Amino acid sequence: MTNGAIKALADQVRNGDRGALARAITLLESDAADQVLERQALLEAVLPQPETGIRYGITGIPGSGKSTLIDALGLQLIGLGHRVAVLAVDPSSTRSGGSILGDKTRMNRLAVHDAAFVRPSPTGGALGGVARRTREAMVLCEAAGYDRVLIETVGVGQNELAVERMTDLNILLMLTGAGDELQGIKRGIMESADVVVLNKCDGENRRACERTRGDLQHALQLLPARANGRRPEVLLCSAMEGTGIAELADHLERSIAQDRSNGAFAERRQAQWSDWLDGAIADALSTEFARDARILQAKEEYRAQVTKGHVSPARAAAELIALFRKGGAPPRE
Amino acid sequence: MTNGAIKALADQVRNGDRGALARAITLLESDAADQVLERQALLEAVLPQPETGIRYGITGIPGSGKSTLIDALGLQLIGLGHRVAVLAVDPSSTRSGGSILGDKTRMNRLAVHDAAFVRPSPTGGALGGVARRTREAMVLCEAAGYDRVLIETVGVGQNELAVERMTDLNILLMLTGAGDELQGIKRGIMESADVVVLNKCDGENRRACERTRGDLQHALQLLPARANGRRPEVLLCSAMEGTGIAELADHLERSIAQDRSNGAFAERRQAQWSDWLDGAIADALSTEFARDARILQAKEEYRAQVTKGHVSPARAAAELIALFRKGGAPPRE
Repeated sequence: MTNGAIKALADQVRNGDRGALARAITLLESDAADQVLERQALLEAVLPQPETGIRYGITGIPGSGKSTLIDALGLQLIGLGHRVAVLAVDPSSTRSGGSILGDKTRMNRLAVHDAAFVRPSPTGGALGGVARRTREAMVLCEAAGYDRVLIETVGVGQNELAVERMTDLNILLMLTGAGDELQGIKRGIMESADVVVLNKCDGENRRACERTRGDLQHALQLLPARANGRRPEVLLCSAMEGTGIAELADHLERSIAQDRSNGAFAERRQAQWSDWLDGAIADALSTEFARDARILQAKEEYRAQVTKGHVSPARAAAELIALFRKGGAPPRE
Repeated sequence: MTNGAIKALADQVRNGDRGALARAITLLESDAADQVLERQALLEAVLPQPETGIRYGITGIPGSGKSTLIDALGLQLIGLGHRVAVLAVDPSSTRSGGSILGDKTRMNRLAVHDAAFVRPSPTGGALGGVARRTREAMVLCEAAGYDRVLIETVGVGQNELAVERMTDLNILLMLTGAGDELQGIKRGIMESADVVVLNKCDGENRRACERTRGDLQHALQLLPARANGRRPEVLLCSAMEGTGIAELADHLERSIAQDRSNGAFAERRQAQWSDWLDGAIADALSTEFARDARILQAKEEYRAQVTKGHVSPARAAAELIALFRKGGAPPRE
C-alpha cells in the first residue's frame, strides 16, 4: 500500500466506515514482515485516539454466558448513547474456526446493530502477538467512533492476564454452583477483576446466587485492593432474562467516572501504553533475530555444536547476539 | 573466580564432591551479569556430560505425594546401582521458604543417603530463568556422577511444560478421588506425560484406583501418541506402603532402554538441547537489551512519546532495536 492509500484507509476508518475498519484490522493482524512499515503508518494515522473511548475486559470460563452477557450489556450501552465494539480473544474459538460464527450468532442482537461492531481476534502465534493485535484493533475501533470496546476472553491460560493490562476496567463473569464458585478460576484472574458478575441468576438459581455473592465478597476481602483503591463489587444478573444489566452498565460507567476524577484512569492508561511498548520491543527483538539470514545460518551451526555438548547454550547465545549487533540492522526495503 | 579456580571447581564436581556440586549449582543460579563468563566456563568445563545420565520429570499437584514417591523411587533406583539427584522446581516451596526444608524432610531416606543429592531449584525471575537454572543444575549433577536425575514440579502453571522439554521421560502423578481424576490437571500436562502413576493406592483406595486406571487409560487413548509412538501406561502404587515402586522403576528403565534402541531417546535429547539454545537466546536478548544504558535512556524518551499517542509502540520498538544493533555490543569487562 502506498502512503496515500494508507492515509485514505485511515480517513475512512475515522469516518466510521465499517468495511474500512474491518480491512484495517485485517492489515494490522498480518504478521508479514514486509508490512511492518504499513502497519506502523496505519496505526499512527489514527493516533492519538479519541479521549472518550473506554475499554472493558470481560473474562469468564466457557459456559459462563459471556456472549449473552455481552449482547445484553452492549445493547444497554448503546441505549446510553454509545457505540460498541466487541473483540473476542478466544483461543478455542479461533482453533475450531466454526465457533467464531457461533459467537456472532449468540450476540444476535448486537451483531446486526448499526451502532455495534463484532470481531473475533485471531490468536495465531505467540501470546505477545495476540496482545499486539488486540491492542491495535482496539485503537482502530476507537478511531472509528466505537467509544466502548468490550474485550472478551476465556478465564483459562494466560491470555486474560494480558487483557487485564489493556483494559480500563476488568469484569470477571462467574456462575453459582455446587461449591465450585472459587474453583476453576485462578487466583491471578480473581486478583485482576475490578467487578465480579454472577450470571444466570434467574429462577431457582437466584437464592444460590445471593449466597455465592456473600462467599465471593468474603473471598475478595482477602485479596489486595486494586490500584485505584477499590475492591471489586459482586453484582448479580441474568443476561438471558435481562435482569441486572442496567445496574451493571451503571456500575461500570460510574466506576470509570470515579477513576477519571481521581487520576486512577490516567495512571492505568499510561501503564497500558507502557506495557504495549514493552511487548512491542520483545516481539520485534525476536522477530528481527529470526529473520536475519546470517543469524539463522550461524544459529544452525551453533545448534550442532551445542547438541554435541561442545559449546554451552549460554555461550552460543551470547556469540549469536554479538553477531546480531555487530552486523547492524540489515537494510530495509 | 579465575579460570584456574573454575577448572578446579569443575574437577571437584567431576570427582563427586558434594560440597563442590552445591557451590557450583549456586554459582550457576546467579543472575549477576558479571558472572556470565564464569557460568559459561564452568558449564563447559563439565561438558560433554556422561552418556549414562537419565532425566525423569515428576509432575503432580500438591498433595499427590510427590516427595514420598520420589523418596521411594530414588531408593529403588539406588538399589539398582544408580546414584540419584533430585531437583525440585516448585514455585510455592521457594516462595514460602520453609517448605524446602519440608521437602527434604519428606524425602527423609533419600536426603541422608550417600548415593543421593537433593536440591530445590530457585524460581526467582522469569520462567526462562527457571528452565535455564534447572538445566544447568541437571548437567552438573550428571557430571558429578548422579546418573538418574529426578526433576520435581507441581502440575499447575507453565513450569511443568518447560520441564517436559528437559527430561527423557515424564511421569505424571495423580490420585483417585470423587470424579476429580481428570480435573485440576490441564490437557497440556496430560499430553506431556509418558507414564501416569496413580499414587496412594492402598487400603480401601485400591479398588477405586483400579476403576480410575480404566478411566484414565480410556482418556489417554483420545490423546495423540507420544513422539516415541507409545501411549502412556497407567501404573498403581503406594509410595507410603512401598507397593508398586519396583514395578514403576522397572517400567521407567525399560522404557528408556527401548527409546535408546529405536532412536527416540537421541531425538528427544537433541530437542532438549535445541530448546535450551532457543531459551538461552531469548534470555540473553532481553537481558542485553535491558542492561544497555543508551537503550534504557532512549526507551524512556520513547515511552513518553508513546504514552502521549505521538509514536506507535511498534515504531518505537523498531527504532530502539535499530539503535541496539547500530551501536554494536558494548565492551565486556
